[in-house]
Amino acid sequence: MSGNSTGHLFRVTTWGESHGPALGAVIDGCPPGLMLDTAAIQADLDRRRPGQSRLTTQRKEADAVEVLSGVFEGRTTGTALSLLIRNADQRSRDYSGVRDLYRPGHADYPYDARFGHRDYRGGGRSSARETAARVAAAAVARQWLAARFGVEVVAWVDRVADVSATGVDEATVDRAAVDAYPVRCPDPAGAAAMTARIDAARKAGDTVGGTIRCVARGVPAGWGAPVFDRLEADLGKACLSLPACKGVEFGSGFEGTRMMGSAHNDAFGVGPDGAPLPLTNRAGGTLGGISTGAPITLRCAFKPVSTHFQPQQTVTREGEAVTFRNQGRHDPCVLPRAVPLVEAAALLTLMDHALRTLALGRG
Amino acid sequence: MSGNSTGHLFRVTTWGESHGPALGAVIDGCPPGLMLDTAAIQADLDRRRPGQSRLTTQRKEADAVEVLSGVFEGRTTGTALSLLIRNADQRSRDYSGVRDLYRPGHADYPYDARFGHRDYRGGGRSSARETAARVAAAAVARQWLAARFGVEVVAWVDRVADVSATGVDEATVDRAAVDAYPVRCPDPAGAAAMTARIDAARKAGDTVGGTIRCVARGVPAGWGAPVFDRLEADLGKACLSLPACKGVEFGSGFEGTRMMGSAHNDAFGVGPDGAPLPLTNRAGGTLGGISTGAPITLRCAFKPVSTHFQPQQTVTREGEAVTFRNQGRHDPCVLPRAVPLVEAAALLTLMDHALRTLALGRG
Amino acid sequence: MSGNSTGHLFRVTTWGESHGPALGAVIDGCPPGLMLDTAAIQADLDRRRPGQSRLTTQRKEADAVEVLSGVFEGRTTGTALSLLIRNADQRSRDYSGVRDLYRPGHADYPYDARFGHRDYRGGGRSSARETAARVAAAAVARQWLAARFGVEVVAWVDRVADVSATGVDEATVDRAAVDAYPVRCPDPAGAAAMTARIDAARKAGDTVGGTIRCVARGVPAGWGAPVFDRLEADLGKACLSLPACKGVEFGSGFEGTRMMGSAHNDAFGVGPDGAPLPLTNRAGGTLGGISTGAPITLRCAFKPVSTHFQPQQTVTREGEAVTFRNQGRHDPCVLPRAVPLVEAAALLTLMDHALRTLALGRG
Amino acid sequence: MSGNSTGHLFRVTTWGESHGPALGAVIDGCPPGLMLDTAAIQADLDRRRPGQSRLTTQRKEADAVEVLSGVFEGRTTGTALSLLIRNADQRSRDYSGVRDLYRPGHADYPYDARFGHRDYRGGGRSSARETAARVAAAAVARQWLAARFGVEVVAWVDRVADVSATGVDEATVDRAAVDAYPVRCPDPAGAAAMTARIDAARKAGDTVGGTIRCVARGVPAGWGAPVFDRLEADLGKACLSLPACKGVEFGSGFEGTRMMGSAHNDAFGVGPDGAPLPLTNRAGGTLGGISTGAPITLRCAFKPVSTHFQPQQTVTREGEAVTFRNQGRHDPCVLPRAVPLVEAAALLTLMDHALRTLALGRG
Repeated sequence: MSGNSTGHLFRVTTWGESHGPALGAVIDGCPPGLMLDTAAIQADLDRRRPGQSRLTTQRKEADAVEVLSGVFEGRTTGTALSLLIRNADQRSRDYSGVRDLYRPGHADYPYDARFGHRDYRGGGRSSARETAARVAAAAVARQWLAARFGVEVVAWVDRVADVSATGVDEATVDRAAVDAYPVRCPDPAGAAAMTARIDAARKAGDTVGGTIRCVARGVPAGWGAPVFDRLEADLGKACLSLPACKGVEFGSGFEGTRMMGSAHNDAFGVGPDGAPLPLTNRAGGTLGGISTGAPITLRCAFKPVSTHFQPQQTVTREGEAVTFRNQGRHDPCVLPRAVPLVEAAALLTLMDHALRTLALGRG
Repeated sequence: MSGNSTGHLFRVTTWGESHGPALGAVIDGCPPGLMLDTAAIQADLDRRRPGQSRLTTQRKEADAVEVLSGVFEGRTTGTALSLLIRNADQRSRDYSGVRDLYRPGHADYPYDARFGHRDYRGGGRSSARETAARVAAAAVARQWLAARFGVEVVAWVDRVADVSATGVDEATVDRAAVDAYPVRCPDPAGAAAMTARIDAARKAGDTVGGTIRCVARGVPAGWGAPVFDRLEADLGKACLSLPACKGVEFGSGFEGTRMMGSAHNDAFGVGPDGAPLPLTNRAGGTLGGISTGAPITLRCAFKPVSTHFQPQQTVTREGEAVTFRNQGRHDPCVLPRAVPLVEAAALLTLMDHALRTLALGRG
Repeated sequence: MSGNSTGHLFRVTTWGESHGPALGAVIDGCPPGLMLDTAAIQADLDRRRPGQSRLTTQRKEADAVEVLSGVFEGRTTGTALSLLIRNADQRSRDYSGVRDLYRPGHADYPYDARFGHRDYRGGGRSSARETAARVAAAAVARQWLAARFGVEVVAWVDRVADVSATGVDEATVDRAAVDAYPVRCPDPAGAAAMTARIDAARKAGDTVGGTIRCVARGVPAGWGAPVFDRLEADLGKACLSLPACKGVEFGSGFEGTRMMGSAHNDAFGVGPDGAPLPLTNRAGGTLGGISTGAPITLRCAFKPVSTHFQPQQTVTREGEAVTFRNQGRHDPCVLPRAVPLVEAAALLTLMDHALRTLALGRG
Repeated sequence: MSGNSTGHLFRVTTWGESHGPALGAVIDGCPPGLMLDTAAIQADLDRRRPGQSRLTTQRKEADAVEVLSGVFEGRTTGTALSLLIRNADQRSRDYSGVRDLYRPGHADYPYDARFGHRDYRGGGRSSARETAARVAAAAVARQWLAARFGVEVVAWVDRVADVSATGVDEATVDRAAVDAYPVRCPDPAGAAAMTARIDAARKAGDTVGGTIRCVARGVPAGWGAPVFDRLEADLGKACLSLPACKGVEFGSGFEGTRMMGSAHNDAFGVGPDGAPLPLTNRAGGTLGGISTGAPITLRCAFKPVSTHFQPQQTVTREGEAVTFRNQGRHDPCVLPRAVPLVEAAALLTLMDHALRTLALGRG
């Protein structure tokens, strides 16, 4: 296998290059009997689509999803779902500028090192365009998780460069609030400042990074696994597999490591349903790798976009030193469009663990 | 599967409870022909062993490893290796204090929620004692990676609570320097301050957390995979599967998200072997999820130890609110003993990706 | 996972229903650098296509394959290949006759039992039409195995009902000889008799089964694995996953169990390359689950086609006893078209084991 | 992975060599809450043990199983079970006769070809002794399948060389009847004739093979999967992974391919619970790869034992032609001891598919 698949029971394989004819995902393991809302899949895809605002790239893509298999009379059949997205914007470009050199911050060199050659058109398989397929697959997971368990996953932009959101309540924030601003920060003041920060970077021909937070509410106690497949481990892997993601933390995360143990532990009380429930949530919803019933909370770090417009030093395939400068239009900040990606990472992971929990054969 | 296995080609399954008769690991996929140094496996285990200094728990365990299969005339045969470690210190204890309640910060409640009951003796399967098996398996990987590729993995304590190491050089730090101080920080001043910090916590009946850094040197360009199995994703999963680990970051990590793209990208130059090599290493040794030949660098966050000696509020299995207080002797800080665990996480991941790269069938 | 994937390293997932818009396969793990001959993929598909002769079903399908990803400038990139085949012949039919009852010999009832509902149009996912996707994926494996190792896989019809082929030489038979007769038996007399046997069945409104033999030449010694993934085990699984296949045997197979051990063992001599080579081949090319360098030989049993035109007793979804009779035109004998399926089963298995052998890291 | 593992959800890994200190199995994925009867595991192992009668090898092994993990207070915990069996009979032998040559019919040569060297003591990993670990793991599956679904798996010797059992009723035959004769054939006349046949082979310094039949009763409709993981495919793989097994067939098998379709299809009637049930069982309990509720029936072919006492022609590791003759005492017929192996193959497969069915999330 070459890394294009994820999940044990809700197994998703994505395929497709940035400038190929299409991209897509196959889901092997979707439970049967789900009334599949294809409009909702499309709505999730639309949140990731390029060209939504001046904050993002101007590539024109409808990103219209077709469901080619696995659904009959509106319901999933339990066999493989094939989701297809045609690439519309494949206009002929001149790639001579990037074909023979290694762009700093991009996968050009390691792909050549690994595979011996690479599809250099728009990044080929390493393009973030691939994530459309993940979002489509995760949209199926979102529907099943909501219908079966009432799980709700919401992500938002937490910080752009040094501009942070404040006052966002993990217990109540929803996707409508997040989408109220193109920058996808549900704090109005933060959203305004972030937008200004991104505009400034764009005008400077530069780019910025930041962090995204995500909460999963409604996950019952008992999802996850001991040892290698702890829920944080699988969630973290999913997040770190997103383009440009260089870090992930759960609950109190890195800051929490400065606390004393007596201050950090979450005391248990009794939840509304009579089950134990942590009274605080520094643990971020898990203990020993298994969910406690508290909201699962995480934060991801996204490095500043590698495609800026300053001159850069690099080498060619023949090992010659050259100075390189990007052309065209690109996202100065990936974070607004990364919000649905982080949700997708969480949804695919939770879906897989939900099915793994059913497979325990309890109850 | 219940989460006790990791890896696709170098597949490790661990088993065993804290107070069962033994624990161990089975490795399915160790390449044949490796001259296995069992003393070196034992040496790696000894670094994780309890009771090494006053900084760590006083449980007495020899942690003597037996290799029960997969080796003939000193060389691995290519069939499954079984590694066994007997539990020596299983003296009878009174568990009535923990059997019926849910310790804050521990896996007691989610294990009950997931499995319907749990082995409450010393944490059972959720005990960090399980990690001995990972360290043993990773010691095999260390030997093969060194012999075949010259890969070297070194981790050290980077910060305890708010006391940070300074001046550690990722390019040269080695395990001897790390082990020169019981706290496993290769910065003498930092080590002294960290030791004092841990002692203070112990005296206060409290615990501390912190961060560990790790570097993998000698990884050739081209290890990793596109999309879901990016090298950071798999390394991050391995780290986040360690007990108490709540965050991981690569290269510039969370701090790097505050930089501009033009400042963050690593320019390419030409390495000593004529291949491209990043001139700086903010990326942490990967691009697009695949190694570049630069050192792979990461940092892990470990929460403060959950077993402190202050009174804590919790509930019983029957849902009654109670006040709970730990007894006995426990590590006030897990970090010195977590150093070999982080190395193990990196080694197991790199080993698997090394074999996956061979399976590409190039060359 | 719901059973739509096969292979560890050359991992193939197929999708699609008989009367959906399309079907296809995704290959995760195709080695990079293969010059892919898409015309050869199409040629393999054409051997499986319906409507090739009066012996087979008259459904009209071009079965034109599109390669949507994973190839750049003619060579595989090492990322996922997506192969798409449109369903052309989806004309509207009246399924009221089969929607509400369970056809004997078909998957209707167990699909309902497993999934709660089913796509009843033409068998949905249980249709043999799915095998087009396997054949397409296997055509990629065929090219790599030939280019890298000189492996050659040839299958042919060995017996139809009680009419057997004679005189076929496993050492030399090739696909051209097999395809010389529509019935795909390279023995002229046998082919004529089989054709007559199939015609007689068709005229009687009935169907026949039989056996297919397959040989893989050029497989080096050392492919396979001990214990669970023996080469016969994986080959056998692949064959038994073909529609209507109810048995498989290797080398001397069931008949060989009547021999004495002293007569059955294959003595070793020295092969043309100086390596040991069995002088006879009752073992069918493997010992202990691993190839010996001798040709791998197997035989598959295909039950008579379930869709005949005699009245049959069955029950409806509501449990009512009814008499049912098939309509339309169907293959009276699946064997000629199953020849490429058996080859595909062998090719996919050998490809996976080739890569697994490379992953051992020897040499 | 090197082939030592099987199953997706009930994942079993075995390890150990014939003349190493021990062998064992780790089960990752055993459902929690099973009251584990270790005496019943031992009883299953005792059926496979050498030295049970004059029909089998005289190696002395107690095959006492230890459960080292995964059970607490008598119940499985849902974490990994480790099963250990010490090798008692490791007395020093002289292997110079087999160390440097390749025994016909044995795995010596392909192991060397694959791994570069081999443990030549008693066959090492290729020894049938490995199957003790499978039987132990399958004994756990047997208990869960019986407790949860009432599944019952029974195998028996069907034919030895040309001596067949007659009159065995698949609907009622049980293990007590099978074990009534050392040859494990529940037909008294057949048992007597088979015993004579084996004795004759032994006296002639030769060996015999034969077939084993197996039935699984109580499997509900709906287990299995479409396409690659059909229930026959997985059952067949498990059987073909047994040492000396060279063929497998389901239901009417190879003989059924001589029938007309109109005679072969099983008509549906209504079962005792009101669900559809095939009125005959030529299909062997599955349709489209999924169980129908009818008994699952299969037959396995076991080649004659490779270790006979006639002179054999072979080559040394250096390629020199030599004549070889086995020494010592060995089973003249593997079939009586293979009965529990075939049951184990079926049990492990059914257990995995049971959990996979639960993971569908229906009901």
